[in-house]
Amino acid sequence: MKIPVVKKVLKLNDEVAQMNRRRLKKSGVFSIELIGSPGSGKTALIERTLDKLAGQMNVGVAVGDLATSYDAERIGKWTEHVVQINTGRGCHLDANQVMRAMRRLPLDEMDLMIVENVGNIICPANWDLGLDAKVALFTASEGDDKPIKHPPIVCSADVIVLNKVDLLPHVEFDVERFTNDIRTLNPDVPIVQTAATRGQVCEFVEWIAAQMMPQATA
Amino acid sequence: MKIPVVKKVLKLNDEVAQMNRRRLKKSGVFSIELIGSPGSGKTALIERTLDKLAGQMNVGVAVGDLATSYDAERIGKWTEHVVQINTGRGCHLDANQVMRAMRRLPLDEMDLMIVENVGNIICPANWDLGLDAKVALFTASEGDDKPIKHPPIVCSADVIVLNKVDLLPHVEFDVERFTNDIRTLNPDVPIVQTAATRGQVCEFVEWIAAQMMPQATA
Repeated sequence: MKIPVVKKVLKLNDEVAQMNRRRLKKSGVFSIELIGSPGSGKTALIERTLDKLAGQMNVGVAVGDLATSYDAERIGKWTEHVVQINTGRGCHLDANQVMRAMRRLPLDEMDLMIVENVGNIICPANWDLGLDAKVALFTASEGDDKPIKHPPIVCSADVIVLNKVDLLPHVEFDVERFTNDIRTLNPDVPIVQTAATRGQVCEFVEWIAAQMMPQATA
Repeated sequence: MKIPVVKKVLKLNDEVAQMNRRRLKKSGVFSIELIGSPGSGKTALIERTLDKLAGQMNVGVAVGDLATSYDAERIGKWTEHVVQINTGRGCHLDANQVMRAMRRLPLDEMDLMIVENVGNIICPANWDLGLDAKVALFTASEGDDKPIKHPPIVCSADVIVLNKVDLLPHVEFDVERFTNDIRTLNPDVPIVQTAATRGQVCEFVEWIAAQMMPQATA
């Protein structure tokens, strides 16, 4: 008698994440997830990024919040392709919530999908949504010790944004310490600086553009 | 035959929370929990509060972080009664972690215990640690829409601190909107303003003192 062994079964979330990944690839959509504390400027960064990319590419956005649709309303001024996900008490998005949002977006017409996670830098680090890249936001006003105190998000990030650099003159923040701590955890991750509410998001937009560039082949 | 029915069994966390509550009451310790986003100034608020209370009362502190003992080291300059709790990937403290910390504090000599939760305004709202009051921190640099987007923490708070008011001239923040949104969710909660890194914590210290005042009896 041969006993059947069920192995390498993915957790349900990770199964759905793989479905999301395949679906996005089929439509040729590059997809990123923004992770940052409440008030780190995720929505402002998306607004200014949409402004810079206007006319160049078609962007869809899904935004997560416990309650309200304020963020989607803000983003709705920049793109008609926006979906709000309300999580109630949920502290992170999961792959199924993103799949539901994707069904409301015209993926075949889109070039880029941006997902704004719930404001939290802990739990979202551990969940695969099936997207191409995780963007971790920190801010000048939060203090320079946040990366070293939150290793999982730093280690899982594909790019790190230091936002609110316009506040650097008004707060205690050692950019060198911030950078060195990140390098300890994730030596090669790109670090870009932005001041989203001032419209300074060029380094981030350039990072997105570089990711979407067709790779040179030998 | 009478079938035994097990009812009103508390969740394990809540059983331990009740044990914490009884233990603190036995020692006559007033206890508060600070909940705020990463970088909202929880540790700075504790430091300046300890400074103001020096010589007046004996305070013990337990601080939660995913990693490092930086916060405990900072607080160790103000009190010898400090314990660091590292949660690894855990996004909130639970009652058992607090009980473990309490075992390392001289409760019978203490008047006040301050517990700094992990930087997160979502999950900690839902966990009873067995303490007397929940203190919710928001900051001027996070934006005025944070209370309305995070109902559970606003509804469960016994006092709300608006920290970093020294940054109000440099950011967009409507204090009236912030206050009105809180009032919608929790009409009677006290709201105090602080600028902890500037040493402005009087309103918060006065709130603590008022809670510890013996109640007048008829």
